Amino acid sequence: MSTPLINQLGVVKRNIERADRDATERMGTLGSATVHEAMGRVGLFKPYMRPIQAGTQVAGTAVTVLLHPGDNWMLHVAAEQIQPGDIVVAAITAECTDGYFGDLLATSFMARGARALVIDAGVRDVRVLKEMGFPVWSKAISAKGCIKATLGSVNIPVICAGALVNPGDAIVADDDGVVVVPAADAVRVADVAQKREDLEGEKRAKLASGVLGLDMYSMREPLARAGLKYID
Amino acid sequence: MSTPLINQLGVVKRNIERADRDATERMGTLGSATVHEAMGRVGLFKPYMRPIQAGTQVAGTAVTVLLHPGDNWMLHVAAEQIQPGDIVVAAITAECTDGYFGDLLATSFMARGARALVIDAGVRDVRVLKEMGFPVWSKAISAKGCIKATLGSVNIPVICAGALVNPGDAIVADDDGVVVVPAADAVRVADVAQKREDLEGEKRAKLASGVLGLDMYSMREPLARAGLKYID
Amino acid sequence: MSTPLINQLGVVKRNIERADRDATERMGTLGSATVHEAMGRVGLFKPYMRPIQAGTQVAGTAVTVLLHPGDNWMLHVAAEQIQPGDIVVAAITAECTDGYFGDLLATSFMARGARALVIDAGVRDVRVLKEMGFPVWSKAISAKGCIKATLGSVNIPVICAGALVNPGDAIVADDDGVVVVPAADAVRVADVAQKREDLEGEKRAKLASGVLGLDMYSMREPLARAGLKYID
Amino acid sequence: MSTPLINQLGVVKRNIERADRDATERMGTLGSATVHEAMGRVGLFKPYMRPIQAGTQVAGTAVTVLLHPGDNWMLHVAAEQIQPGDIVVAAITAECTDGYFGDLLATSFMARGARALVIDAGVRDVRVLKEMGFPVWSKAISAKGCIKATLGSVNIPVICAGALVNPGDAIVADDDGVVVVPAADAVRVADVAQKREDLEGEKRAKLASGVLGLDMYSMREPLARAGLKYID
Amino acid sequence: MSTPLINQLGVVKRNIERADRDATERMGTLGSATVHEAMGRVGLFKPYMRPIQAGTQVAGTAVTVLLHPGDNWMLHVAAEQIQPGDIVVAAITAECTDGYFGDLLATSFMARGARALVIDAGVRDVRVLKEMGFPVWSKAISAKGCIKATLGSVNIPVICAGALVNPGDAIVADDDGVVVVPAADAVRVADVAQKREDLEGEKRAKLASGVLGLDMYSMREPLARAGLKYID
Amino acid sequence: MSTPLINQLGVVKRNIERADRDATERMGTLGSATVHEAMGRVGLFKPYMRPIQAGTQVAGTAVTVLLHPGDNWMLHVAAEQIQPGDIVVAAITAECTDGYFGDLLATSFMARGARALVIDAGVRDVRVLKEMGFPVWSKAISAKGCIKATLGSVNIPVICAGALVNPGDAIVADDDGVVVVPAADAVRVADVAQKREDLEGEKRAKLASGVLGLDMYSMREPLARAGLKYID
Repeated sequence: MSTPLINQLGVVKRNIERADRDATERMGTLGSATVHEAMGRVGLFKPYMRPIQAGTQVAGTAVTVLLHPGDNWMLHVAAEQIQPGDIVVAAITAECTDGYFGDLLATSFMARGARALVIDAGVRDVRVLKEMGFPVWSKAISAKGCIKATLGSVNIPVICAGALVNPGDAIVADDDGVVVVPAADAVRVADVAQKREDLEGEKRAKLASGVLGLDMYSMREPLARAGLKYID
Repeated sequence: MSTPLINQLGVVKRNIERADRDATERMGTLGSATVHEAMGRVGLFKPYMRPIQAGTQVAGTAVTVLLHPGDNWMLHVAAEQIQPGDIVVAAITAECTDGYFGDLLATSFMARGARALVIDAGVRDVRVLKEMGFPVWSKAISAKGCIKATLGSVNIPVICAGALVNPGDAIVADDDGVVVVPAADAVRVADVAQKREDLEGEKRAKLASGVLGLDMYSMREPLARAGLKYID
Repeated sequence: MSTPLINQLGVVKRNIERADRDATERMGTLGSATVHEAMGRVGLFKPYMRPIQAGTQVAGTAVTVLLHPGDNWMLHVAAEQIQPGDIVVAAITAECTDGYFGDLLATSFMARGARALVIDAGVRDVRVLKEMGFPVWSKAISAKGCIKATLGSVNIPVICAGALVNPGDAIVADDDGVVVVPAADAVRVADVAQKREDLEGEKRAKLASGVLGLDMYSMREPLARAGLKYID
Repeated sequence: MSTPLINQLGVVKRNIERADRDATERMGTLGSATVHEAMGRVGLFKPYMRPIQAGTQVAGTAVTVLLHPGDNWMLHVAAEQIQPGDIVVAAITAECTDGYFGDLLATSFMARGARALVIDAGVRDVRVLKEMGFPVWSKAISAKGCIKATLGSVNIPVICAGALVNPGDAIVADDDGVVVVPAADAVRVADVAQKREDLEGEKRAKLASGVLGLDMYSMREPLARAGLKYID
Repeated sequence: MSTPLINQLGVVKRNIERADRDATERMGTLGSATVHEAMGRVGLFKPYMRPIQAGTQVAGTAVTVLLHPGDNWMLHVAAEQIQPGDIVVAAITAECTDGYFGDLLATSFMARGARALVIDAGVRDVRVLKEMGFPVWSKAISAKGCIKATLGSVNIPVICAGALVNPGDAIVADDDGVVVVPAADAVRVADVAQKREDLEGEKRAKLASGVLGLDMYSMREPLARAGLKYID
Repeated sequence: MSTPLINQLGVVKRNIERADRDATERMGTLGSATVHEAMGRVGLFKPYMRPIQAGTQVAGTAVTVLLHPGDNWMLHVAAEQIQPGDIVVAAITAECTDGYFGDLLATSFMARGARALVIDAGVRDVRVLKEMGFPVWSKAISAKGCIKATLGSVNIPVICAGALVNPGDAIVADDDGVVVVPAADAVRVADVAQKREDLEGEKRAKLASGVLGLDMYSMREPLARAGLKYID
């Protein structure tokens, strides 16, 4: 059975296998665009996920939460499962823009060692969150708070903003968006991403000197073959 | 490893385990709303997925496809993997409204025994598709055709309109939307759904006779306890 | 105090003053566009409110409901307050597309004499609703059902799809959208709307015979004065 | 100067060169998807443009109008410029969903021989418009009427739903959307589109007989070359 | 009659009763999220209302304006009704993103003592507005200016971004959004909000020390009763 | 023939006529709102086009590019056509949010003297782009990269975010949005815009001193004539 827990509500999984710490850190220094390329251009959260702060680049291992519309009860349950270096990834069972998360929960998450929150809904107290230095990627900002009435789950596979996240997967987030890397692929993807990055410095220098991508990437011949015509 | 193929491009899986045929058919007679309840209210595609036709209710087993924006090459690859009773579920690696599917592909899909297409993008020739009786649920309708240039995959796990679909999962679709039921859960969910349905006839008769849900469901006491006040 | 109840939760008002029955009926024969003009072009629900059926034109007096995201408990409370000729107008405290209403609630509403539902959220069982002949205007269609856990209110002023509706107000709905007419204005607006309609027959005949609006409405002179230039 | 009038307000151009009548008619029998392919996949209106009716396929020559938000004065000016076989294409200077067009204007347009309206805004009286048999493609449906206060222009180049339309261009519209063909290209595009269509009958027969697109289009070799792998 | 002016155009009300000044100020120090909770989670503007600046928290009494699409004439009429400490709340009769407000109007509003603008449409000159220190919450930013041709109203009840605002109501706005508090409720809501805030300091300290919300709020027992299961 | 190239793919035009340099610079100091007014309120890109940076105001001459969804090959072709003072304007043949442009292309564009990019799609590496000081206006931000497989065109007329841009046209962009001025109109529009600006200083001083727009613009009489009523 491939994804035994994806449809279960009312479950908290305590022991999860986290992606390699070092590989996760390395991906954090490379950023979401490079990691996404290294993944073969899959694993990206929908681009409506936006940071509430600017200039922050972070990586961590996923603690996942499944929530109901307007109900943030399970974020408190999730807090207990956080280990230092984790990023909480919260999915909702239906579209919702309510503010699920504010400065109190952030205080709790930080005390547990969480690095960030990625949530397919709204958050609030954003000015304070920025002052606290707790990074958040969300779909909305809303002053509307939540009730605490219905069970969801913690550390089951979730689909968040169009991306499947298994608990323990590596998450890379920055101003360009959020990417998930399956835990089992983290080391390989970190290596591939690093190689891509190593090549970029030289390319950047050439382009800065005025060399055209047309020449650097030898594109003129394939473009001509594809039929590109220059006119005056 | 739970979802080994979800990030792989350029792969076609030929042998997939399909959900129980009889359970799938039974869910097809019950419809997406009842099946979604029986699932515990998970597994629903986002409500932007809309049928191009009205009044069609269908169920089948998923043949999945992952496509790139503006490129429908893999739909031809998918056609070969279709068995009678299948529903093709097509996901795109990024937001796209192009018309990936028209009357020619529908002719081919029907010849292979496909029952429907569910696609997180656009389709075209919709008047002809309706005349042919080939049902489609899509995000958009667009006359814009596709190129055939980049590899995707067939029969890998995909995320389509916010729902994780593994090849072989049961798909139930009607005017209310589209629901996925994991293959391993199909029999159980069909049974639960049937039980829900069996109870509905009696309820409907009572409500039609003027009995209020307040009384039929014994809601008055919990409402009062929650603090509901009647004023004049 | 003008709108004393708009912010109160957990309240059901039993006695409401309904708009004049005859005026409401007359507005129902004229349709939303004509009534909206007669209102001075205010009172329109946002155009994302769409009928699930085509060709239905209806009017009635509002029974209002305020609901929470994903929770339809109060629709059962509202059912008891319905009188023949009413239209239930349901607002949600936050954006939500869940399916709040299906064939069971429709059976109950019809048994109480309700004429329609207008809801700023989703509905389901739409094929059956159409077969039952119960008209609905909604923001979405979704198979996702609701829980019954939190109190809202019935027959308080609500804001539904951008329009303020007081209980008892007249509601006019058709393929063009939904309009609210304050109960106290119903007779006057019905009269104005009828006068508009009376003038339309003659205009239509003239336009059909080839007379231009430019001439029928004497627009040429004001257009020239505004500076319109004809070139060849 | 390539587009001398695109920015001018307050202008009505009386003499425009219309696309070849016969070519326009021929494209009308082929539909928007085929014509769009024949154009090289350009000229499509954004897919949010939807017909208010189903099953209508039409072509005609463009009479263009530029309107201001909430103001439909120029539609009356446009009526006078309509010749039999024309389609009115209406652009707005800013996003607007108001109902610019209803049964009275439709009566006038039909009396002048107009075949359809394509408008990047809302329309109303849609039930009556369908009964009258006057086809409309629009962005929205809204009961909200317009004022008549500000000058726009008629028969200048306009951008409607992302497509540049010059007066006299051929417009093809059906359930798949709306396409514009420059007047000077109409004959050539009609010929190319007809050739595409001629080839489709044979293809359809082959696919219906069970031949796969993979074989019919000789895709297996290029797919293998691109690296497609089959697994079991 | 509950809301006698909501549908009237062409009216300016000069004498309005403003919410208690001190209560309004106190709510301004507490912010929209806390005030919204204190209101019982109603009164929030839709979350698409966003500040053009970051980090500003403000409160004031509402001067309301109803405007037509693309027409900002009444903002000049509103300016005369502004008293120090007011916030102008502008609603539009239909969806519009035009830039209704720029640096000249801001200069005038500031000279009258206005504290902010909340508008369900677009604004422009946003760089200058930020330099001037005049805060704005809006739905859009657009360089497109407005005409001055049609009458709206000032100081009538309006619906702005889904919230009913009566002239004189208290408005609280910050990075989390905008909340309206009815003038008659201002003192009570300010008191409730302050009490909420007073409790938060202690909670924050506990959470920061590592105490879990699960324990602080005694959630473990109700979660277990609701059926939450922990697995390994 | 008015727009001979608008539908051609696979074409690069090398020699284009650029708008007057001095007029372009002058418009750059005035900003998009003033220039848009001077144009007669046409030429604005849709307001969903947003800067990735804040506070930048720029003008330049357009090098245009037409791209396919998910394919940025032609941006490399465009780079060669850039001359100092140009702004690259990129249109896509269908809706797409992929990240077409990042720090490598920005390095190349800056080396060629480009002043900015305006693109109706997504960009990435936005933190680095801001550090480099290369301004971008885009529809989205996305880490998703592009392939290089299909031909588009360079320096043909394109429609970008609803605006027609001919190569060489003047582009003015700031925090309020993006405006295009046809090359042939640049000097005239710059003059008109400067005159508007010259008048604003005096107006601003008057308004700051407390003079009302009602009096400064002599609006009281026309408002009264239109029927505005003051009540107490």
